Amino acid sequence: MSTPAPSAEVSMETIVALCKRRGFIFQSSEIYGGFNGFFDYGPLGVELKKNIRDCWWNDMVRRRDDVVGLESSIIMHPKVWEASGHVAGFSDPLVDCKTSKQRFRADQLFFSPVVIDGKTVGYVSALESERTTEELQAAAESFKRKKALQGTLAPVTPKDFTEAREDEHALIPSPATGEPGSLTAPRAFNMMFQTNVGAMTDGSSVAYLRPETAQGMFVDFKNVVDTGRVKLPFGIAQIGKSFRNEITPRNFIFRSREFEQMEMEYFIHEDADWKKSHDEWIEWCRSWLLSIGLPESHLSLYTHPKEKLSFYSRGTVDIMFKYPFGVQELWGIAARGNYDLTQHANASGKPQEIFDEATKKKFVPHVIEPAVGTDRIFLATLCAGYAEEDVTDEKGNTEKRVVLRLSPRIAPVKVAVLPLLKNKEALTQRAQALYKKLQRRYAVFYDESGAIGKRYRRQDEIGTPWCVTIDFDTIEKPGDTFTLRERDSMTQKRITESDLFALLEEQVY
Amino acid sequence: MSTPAPSAEVSMETIVALCKRRGFIFQSSEIYGGFNGFFDYGPLGVELKKNIRDCWWNDMVRRRDDVVGLESSIIMHPKVWEASGHVAGFSDPLVDCKTSKQRFRADQLFFSPVVIDGKTVGYVSALESERTTEELQAAAESFKRKKALQGTLAPVTPKDFTEAREDEHALIPSPATGEPGSLTAPRAFNMMFQTNVGAMTDGSSVAYLRPETAQGMFVDFKNVVDTGRVKLPFGIAQIGKSFRNEITPRNFIFRSREFEQMEMEYFIHEDADWKKSHDEWIEWCRSWLLSIGLPESHLSLYTHPKEKLSFYSRGTVDIMFKYPFGVQELWGIAARGNYDLTQHANASGKPQEIFDEATKKKFVPHVIEPAVGTDRIFLATLCAGYAEEDVTDEKGNTEKRVVLRLSPRIAPVKVAVLPLLKNKEALTQRAQALYKKLQRRYAVFYDESGAIGKRYRRQDEIGTPWCVTIDFDTIEKPGDTFTLRERDSMTQKRITESDLFALLEEQVY
Repeated sequence: MSTPAPSAEVSMETIVALCKRRGFIFQSSEIYGGFNGFFDYGPLGVELKKNIRDCWWNDMVRRRDDVVGLESSIIMHPKVWEASGHVAGFSDPLVDCKTSKQRFRADQLFFSPVVIDGKTVGYVSALESERTTEELQAAAESFKRKKALQGTLAPVTPKDFTEAREDEHALIPSPATGEPGSLTAPRAFNMMFQTNVGAMTDGSSVAYLRPETAQGMFVDFKNVVDTGRVKLPFGIAQIGKSFRNEITPRNFIFRSREFEQMEMEYFIHEDADWKKSHDEWIEWCRSWLLSIGLPESHLSLYTHPKEKLSFYSRGTVDIMFKYPFGVQELWGIAARGNYDLTQHANASGKPQEIFDEATKKKFVPHVIEPAVGTDRIFLATLCAGYAEEDVTDEKGNTEKRVVLRLSPRIAPVKVAVLPLLKNKEALTQRAQALYKKLQRRYAVFYDESGAIGKRYRRQDEIGTPWCVTIDFDTIEKPGDTFTLRERDSMTQKRITESDLFALLEEQVY
Repeated sequence: MSTPAPSAEVSMETIVALCKRRGFIFQSSEIYGGFNGFFDYGPLGVELKKNIRDCWWNDMVRRRDDVVGLESSIIMHPKVWEASGHVAGFSDPLVDCKTSKQRFRADQLFFSPVVIDGKTVGYVSALESERTTEELQAAAESFKRKKALQGTLAPVTPKDFTEAREDEHALIPSPATGEPGSLTAPRAFNMMFQTNVGAMTDGSSVAYLRPETAQGMFVDFKNVVDTGRVKLPFGIAQIGKSFRNEITPRNFIFRSREFEQMEMEYFIHEDADWKKSHDEWIEWCRSWLLSIGLPESHLSLYTHPKEKLSFYSRGTVDIMFKYPFGVQELWGIAARGNYDLTQHANASGKPQEIFDEATKKKFVPHVIEPAVGTDRIFLATLCAGYAEEDVTDEKGNTEKRVVLRLSPRIAPVKVAVLPLLKNKEALTQRAQALYKKLQRRYAVFYDESGAIGKRYRRQDEIGTPWCVTIDFDTIEKPGDTFTLRERDSMTQKRITESDLFALLEEQVY
């Protein structure tokens, strides 16, 4: 008997604690006090992550006839990022505090003028957090008291620092010192990590860590066309690391400085119905998320308003996921026209065209781009899958169990093999034989220590879909059957070895 | 009939051309003139690379009970690299030419004193290449002629620039200008790529791209011990990108600036027989290379001489591979004592010990480290597998075929499905049905264009182990059999669908 708790109630603290306790995710360089915005995947985390990645690759590349793979380098020629617009435009607005030497993101610095009897008498706040109107109001009242001002205080009008007028910059208090006068005007801070390649360390050797994998597909477009026997429409897919120097990384692995992307560029004819292709890819991505076990109830679509799109963009739709910290972007599906290929054609002087056999003319293909972060999917599966349940055993005792409802496709361990007793050789021998046979194909776990119920709980907590117990019926009764215990329903039934393999073959791939 | 050419004869030019032609490897950022030391893996390359990686992961982690996986971040806390010794010691000796502003690796700059009648009258050479004694001798004779010197010229004694005395530095001609006087003394040039993390770009924010994955395993050692239920001896394995700012990247993907490593740290008891464990891992690595199809004839062992080892090292053995450019290191297996964990314990103040239940005392485990580059294995499989053969058909016509003898475990395409004729619906329908069924599990290729012989050749060249032809016997005779054509022997036999799946199940995993 189980009472599923709605997973929306899980807190990030609970997820982070589970990740550390069971070896899914560690803070990077933890023994040195950690390194903000970087994370390590432990023994179970690396399996879960690899499974997400492999499912995507199988479904996106190997099982499709119209998508091929690519792995371009993380460090590319700096001209790539000039052409793509990242050198000029991939930036956050930053504000310096000249006194403390600290820096802040302007769009996260909130402030309000203090207005008494219609006259601005000062400014409050500028804290590096989403400050509530109530807090700003209280700060304004405190300002009035401290300065012993008379008159009627107007309601605060919270703005972020990017909305401040130039003459206001020096009047807003620094969050570091609490005093005005030290903040600079916002300036664009490029989010690409910069390095130097070769023996020189001057401007000539500057290069960047890629902030997205997508440009690799554009830069190699002609190479793929020339070698791959591809025909429009077709896609180029890539999985790999990207880097963004976030000033305020947050929400665990949701917004980190080093992350993994799974991106695909789907090239279509310039005259093709881009809207249709866009819609098809939105639906493909949504279905794929369901196929790895994300619940439909946590997914929604967000269409970017026309006025917020780049000039070249036809449209962008995000698949949103309900995380514990809010509904956030999981997968962006963008219709980018032929902007990127055209930019590279202009910057490199190499045409990025395809020859149309039907019309006998050349053109630059348009592109639909579904882009998702592996780490964000990873976090979504944990948040949606986590549950704490009260379970009652046959004796009527109630205990709590933690269960991670991961799809068999991505669960880090597919099956746990458990001999009922560890000091009974006939049981352990049979269990070891099954374990070795399963291990050739699947990630499996052998556990012989502790009571069987306790072993089930250990597997529940890491999302193992099935436990197989080798018991006395296995070795004493005909048929060589095991007890198969299912994680979510906790039901048990007897199963043969060949039925177990058939079950895995059906559910895991 | 086939006449295999010994693959040692293959040139790098041939391999590089095949890689580009068939989409295994492209130069990074090729449309911008390329970017030295960086490479992209194309549609076939990414499959081959993924297969190498997956084979290693399955054999090293999933199929072993004593090894767990890890994925640590590429950018770690800079203190990691101070403790590991990389900040101070991971460097090449560099020489500047003050006139040309060029830089050279001192150990690749060769020179010789010009000695006439026992007296040094000048210096020749210093070219950035391995200069032969004959060339240096000729340069010395030319020097003597030009300066109109009399007397007996002594034989040259070639040295590299690291062997030059301090007073010789300014006398040796620069390879850039041909004139002496502009070369500086060699100085240590750190090979780690440097970047800045966070909003500051001063010294406080300096961080490095990891030059090896290994330190991740040491830094996370305690986290893995605390969560993973591991017991000595056990290993932590990782696959991931590393970066080294090589001054002269060369030999295609053999020595590049961005590369992928597959490393494992095997922790053993401080009193364990490290020699035995070291030997076992050398043998494991050698067997594994054979299991993915590298020929025994191309492999050899090199034991590092005692006097060249670091003070903490117990011993290092490299598995060498016969590449077209010489016999070079493929896989290093190092016995590193407890150096790394001890360094991190000292630097972090966090003990890196394990409690021994038997002796009831704590100790720092020792480690055996097998470290290999995915790209080096990739290149080895192409070099060893490539062959050009004269083949004679049944009519007695001889033609050339290029064949890539890749193991079925790593071949990018496992099976090509070929309907005999493309305009015969009964053939293409049966072929498509088989193709779709295979595609669920394997990387397969469907090809219906061109003569069947030509289609076989296309597959031979990319290393596809088997072609399956759906012909009239398939659809007209009982048994639903196909023609299975084997790549290396070019023999053909009839096979059923279930036998085909059994063959793949046996050979591919």
